[in-house]
Amino acid sequence: MRISDRLLMGPGPSNPYPEVTMALGRPILGHLDPRFLELLDETNDRLRQLFGTSNRLTLPVSGTGSAGMEASFVNFVRPGDTVVVGVNGLFGERMCDVAVRHGAKVVRVDAEWGKPIEPARLLEAHPHPALIAVVHAETSTGVRNEIAPLGEGKADALLLVDMVTSLGGIDVAVDRWSVDIAYSGTQKCLGVPPGLAPLTVSARALGRRVERPSSWYLDLGLLAGYVNDTAGRGRVYHHTAPVAMVAALHAGLGALIEEGLDQARARHASCGTLLQEGLAELGLELLVSAEQHRLPQLTTVLVPAGVDDAAVRRELLSTYDIEIGAGAGRLAGKVWRIGCMGHTARRRNVLALLAALGEVLGR
Amino acid sequence: MRISDRLLMGPGPSNPYPEVTMALGRPILGHLDPRFLELLDETNDRLRQLFGTSNRLTLPVSGTGSAGMEASFVNFVRPGDTVVVGVNGLFGERMCDVAVRHGAKVVRVDAEWGKPIEPARLLEAHPHPALIAVVHAETSTGVRNEIAPLGEGKADALLLVDMVTSLGGIDVAVDRWSVDIAYSGTQKCLGVPPGLAPLTVSARALGRRVERPSSWYLDLGLLAGYVNDTAGRGRVYHHTAPVAMVAALHAGLGALIEEGLDQARARHASCGTLLQEGLAELGLELLVSAEQHRLPQLTTVLVPAGVDDAAVRRELLSTYDIEIGAGAGRLAGKVWRIGCMGHTARRRNVLALLAALGEVLGR
Repeated sequence: MRISDRLLMGPGPSNPYPEVTMALGRPILGHLDPRFLELLDETNDRLRQLFGTSNRLTLPVSGTGSAGMEASFVNFVRPGDTVVVGVNGLFGERMCDVAVRHGAKVVRVDAEWGKPIEPARLLEAHPHPALIAVVHAETSTGVRNEIAPLGEGKADALLLVDMVTSLGGIDVAVDRWSVDIAYSGTQKCLGVPPGLAPLTVSARALGRRVERPSSWYLDLGLLAGYVNDTAGRGRVYHHTAPVAMVAALHAGLGALIEEGLDQARARHASCGTLLQEGLAELGLELLVSAEQHRLPQLTTVLVPAGVDDAAVRRELLSTYDIEIGAGAGRLAGKVWRIGCMGHTARRRNVLALLAALGEVLGR
Repeated sequence: MRISDRLLMGPGPSNPYPEVTMALGRPILGHLDPRFLELLDETNDRLRQLFGTSNRLTLPVSGTGSAGMEASFVNFVRPGDTVVVGVNGLFGERMCDVAVRHGAKVVRVDAEWGKPIEPARLLEAHPHPALIAVVHAETSTGVRNEIAPLGEGKADALLLVDMVTSLGGIDVAVDRWSVDIAYSGTQKCLGVPPGLAPLTVSARALGRRVERPSSWYLDLGLLAGYVNDTAGRGRVYHHTAPVAMVAALHAGLGALIEEGLDQARARHASCGTLLQEGLAELGLELLVSAEQHRLPQLTTVLVPAGVDDAAVRRELLSTYDIEIGAGAGRLAGKVWRIGCMGHTARRRNVLALLAALGEVLGR
């Protein structure tokens, strides 16, 4: 099979950092090898820096971002618990589905797809929910939801935030915002292939975790025994850690930290601005009208009337080796999603995409 | 960090095939890219060859082998179902834990760790269980359990088999043995890093699957829509597939199939014999006394009296860069587990291990 060298500008995966690809080419280590455990510890330290937290329980869950979502609900929701979920896109919808499967009574707070959710509405939705859950950066719409006021106003509730598309790309501050549970994915702004879900849990949340959740694989009590030596007698084997992917994550986080987290965020911001201005110059309309609610790393643009959505994406892929994303959920066929995340977030790539899209659209 | 080049002769991971490492170093593809979907289809075809099945629903689950175990229970067990589980090692124990979490009434059939479970005992344990579950190759003991008679005698029950350590190393015949659900792991005899759980499900089992299992991430109805286009309108996005690991699995299966599955099994068999004879020559005793119940790919050997278990393993690791495994569960401290799986299953490696172990033990 011929090797394709795609420029990945969809909603993820993004192109991995070269350091990540090199890490994947290294000999692997056993999951109980002291050198691997050292690498895992360092990976978790790096994740703490990215999340802005000192949470002891911070680890890559052995599944994709959605496994992080599931781990967040299965370990903290008991049947009958009231869970307030903000829904202004596909991933908010998904949270509702996952929460209901674990027996939660879900109180939905909907907002238009393309508009943010007002924090006050989430805080006023129920007098004493067990949990308030919201998506920080909605990958289906390109909207940024505000988190800080939720931490201030959550009272006794736990605050759960999906940071799949935000971590590494825009400001994230788990401790400062009083977030109790946050998860992410590796294939967005971290510049690592998909396969792991970074997760962090506050001590406050840990004190309320479900003792024996329905999922053995995602049981945080068991996972903590492997990542943190909670029993004080060495690590306890749970499942075989995906060592190659952990090495890749370690390398990706290393690249970001070496660049500087502020610099990396500024790079995402300037690429986002360049892209969004360029799309406007092509005469295209963005879904998210208010600039302050847009994500730099994920831009949704309306498919112009009379243009064949799929044909444009196919042409970009076949002629230019550039991938952009289709609309998802109720936006299917109506928007394109253009990602500018991780290693992909480079001025050169944005210019290439804009020029190619201009050619395909004949503008 | 200095790069360690370990010879991985523990219970997994094994050393990846060179083709696998090369595949991990390639540019990645998006999870909806036509070229990736082609690669995924081909991977699933290759898995069918390995499993010996024509099951349409055959796929790599996006988690390690244990996620395969969990997917097998969460999709097929309803609260109150009777599940017969064979237990002659740690992974049989784990099956009981997972089954109970999903509401099953578990009927345990125990056998001594190091001895196989007689199929008749599993078939007679309950008059009409919903499911009979057993581990084909017990990684904690090195015992091979017989599967074929279970398929013949299962009557109305579904037959679920853990093939984590057997697939690719010894004969496996899902269709011929009438196995309904089987899962595996990539990091054993397939010679791929850990991170995926190959899974195959018969049409008979599919007809009885739980409509909306508690796990969204492992919901086979949703997974099937992505891998198989079940709705006939193209693939439906579920979660972002771990594209790099799927490419690695594709390459590992390719290497095995190119070698020939019979040849690969013969290679595992001859390495196992060489290892087990060599250990006997060193004066060491194997846990599994009957030769016909031993696995060639995973050998448990008793730690001799007066020998420091951990010190020997440390010395092998630090001086020789060879990893062997400790005992697990009730065999902790009592045995070493020596794997000879996937790319590691080479005469050269067995000779190196035997010579090194001889030096460390002073024999």
